Amino acid sequence: MDPQRPAHLTLELVREAHERIKDKIARTPVMTSATLDGLANAELFFKCENFQKTGAFKARGATNAVFSLSASQAQKGVATHSSGNHGAALARAARLRGIGATVVMPNNAPRAKQDSVKRYGGDIVFCEPTLEARESALERVIADHGACMIHPYNDLRVMAGQGTTAVELIEAVPDLDVILCPVGGGGLLSGIAVAAKKMRPSIRVIGVEPAAADDAARSFRSGRIVPSVNPTTIADGLRSSLGDKTFAEIRRYVDDIVTVSEQSIVGGMRRIWEVMKILVEPSGAVAYAALAEGKLDVRSRRVGLVLTGGNLDLERLPW
Amino acid sequence: MDPQRPAHLTLELVREAHERIKDKIARTPVMTSATLDGLANAELFFKCENFQKTGAFKARGATNAVFSLSASQAQKGVATHSSGNHGAALARAARLRGIGATVVMPNNAPRAKQDSVKRYGGDIVFCEPTLEARESALERVIADHGACMIHPYNDLRVMAGQGTTAVELIEAVPDLDVILCPVGGGGLLSGIAVAAKKMRPSIRVIGVEPAAADDAARSFRSGRIVPSVNPTTIADGLRSSLGDKTFAEIRRYVDDIVTVSEQSIVGGMRRIWEVMKILVEPSGAVAYAALAEGKLDVRSRRVGLVLTGGNLDLERLPW
Repeated sequence: MDPQRPAHLTLELVREAHERIKDKIARTPVMTSATLDGLANAELFFKCENFQKTGAFKARGATNAVFSLSASQAQKGVATHSSGNHGAALARAARLRGIGATVVMPNNAPRAKQDSVKRYGGDIVFCEPTLEARESALERVIADHGACMIHPYNDLRVMAGQGTTAVELIEAVPDLDVILCPVGGGGLLSGIAVAAKKMRPSIRVIGVEPAAADDAARSFRSGRIVPSVNPTTIADGLRSSLGDKTFAEIRRYVDDIVTVSEQSIVGGMRRIWEVMKILVEPSGAVAYAALAEGKLDVRSRRVGLVLTGGNLDLERLPW
Repeated sequence: MDPQRPAHLTLELVREAHERIKDKIARTPVMTSATLDGLANAELFFKCENFQKTGAFKARGATNAVFSLSASQAQKGVATHSSGNHGAALARAARLRGIGATVVMPNNAPRAKQDSVKRYGGDIVFCEPTLEARESALERVIADHGACMIHPYNDLRVMAGQGTTAVELIEAVPDLDVILCPVGGGGLLSGIAVAAKKMRPSIRVIGVEPAAADDAARSFRSGRIVPSVNPTTIADGLRSSLGDKTFAEIRRYVDDIVTVSEQSIVGGMRRIWEVMKILVEPSGAVAYAALAEGKLDVRSRRVGLVLTGGNLDLERLPW
């Protein structure tokens, strides 16, 4: 192992990430709702990453990764595969640094996601919508251009960037009892867990994922990574399986992972829209859905929830 | 005229209103968007009254009116007619004061609006959906209960409350060049115009209304109130005609009133949703629609826009 590259995520890495990116991202607001507090019998603090640059927390990790590169590493640009928010976030970060970004996308990726990558100046390479085609297309891009691969989540630089969400949330609300955080590949949950537990050891950190994509819950219980197989959840940002780096931190720092039904996700998302008047995508609503479904006893607690993103197709709402 | 009751709206009345209501309403955020700034070639500052209590600025005026009443005036409760946001705002304000509120609503009022009045503890009296039926039903309520009538807009206490929107906006962004504000009955526009012009005489205050309900623009140009006749705009909050009190202030303090097409309203609303990730109702989007439609030259200016509300039926979106 490269002695320069840390083996584990630390609060110091998260704080360094925050210094590196804080002028390049939004310090998103923490919103509250008396109505939702009343329904939950708890005090809820929503960290609104739907208002983040590119519309999702992914801007944090991608920006930290791109600005962590040495000049020689950065020179030939960056590349990733993504059908979602990481692609746009990487394109934006690369443009801020003045380098190229190539995003491998399945040829059935939603038009809105393609447009978002292009809007930030990213190059798209299309492939068949299989993991194999994705990986081989990405390998070709890297071989041809010498671009630096930035994984969507299984990368300490990305995880450190995502963890800055917790730094800001706890600075805004120091006496939180619990943080609820969606989990897909685990980049956000691992970053948040490390930062939150080091900043405030008494805090409970709980991951939430769709029951229809419960690989993280099963991995957490069994102690080994159980990949998800063709999950069909509406929460498109949470279909990925954990990586070895994210899983290592999640095992160590996360208190529990709970699952929510598809119905709860849609209902929770809709209630957030109606009551809070903000757009959150299905993946971003799962933490609140866990409360609405009664999966957690948080009565009288101070609960932080991460609304992870707000990118979705307004033509195709699930109600 | 009662010497105790002022004949005109003043900044002092607006500031008194702000002192009276500020602990009972939300100090809503002022949001910005680099994307929308780029499209408009201007700096835009959105005063987010969609995040106001009850989901609309109407909470300001109703709360000021209810808490302006003497104990004997308040004793028998308050009443109004409203098919929209004023009814819920009045019900909430009355509950805060511990008195009753009766809202006369047309029997075809949207279910969501009825539910909102009930949620805040208001009593609903249904009537046929005509102005005549509305007024006679309200007269009966007042005769039977002795309730105090709080008009949705043509009332200095209500206008003063709505004007507090401008106080907060200008405190947050002191060097605004222009404020754009939707106009229906004119309660918000008149309150904002008086407050803004007194606080910052160089500011331009421009009303925006649907071309399909252009009574305010026609009244402004002709110098006399031209009522609207069965307007069919999607902006349901802007179908009312001006009142004599609102018109008096609008004539004196407003610089211009411009109109926007139905297509611009829907397009502007959708762009706000997509880019800013917030819900705004059609009436709340007309100020931005005026920019999107190119109705105003605001290049390089600092422009305040009031997003007046976020209450709408998510089952029936106009796209």
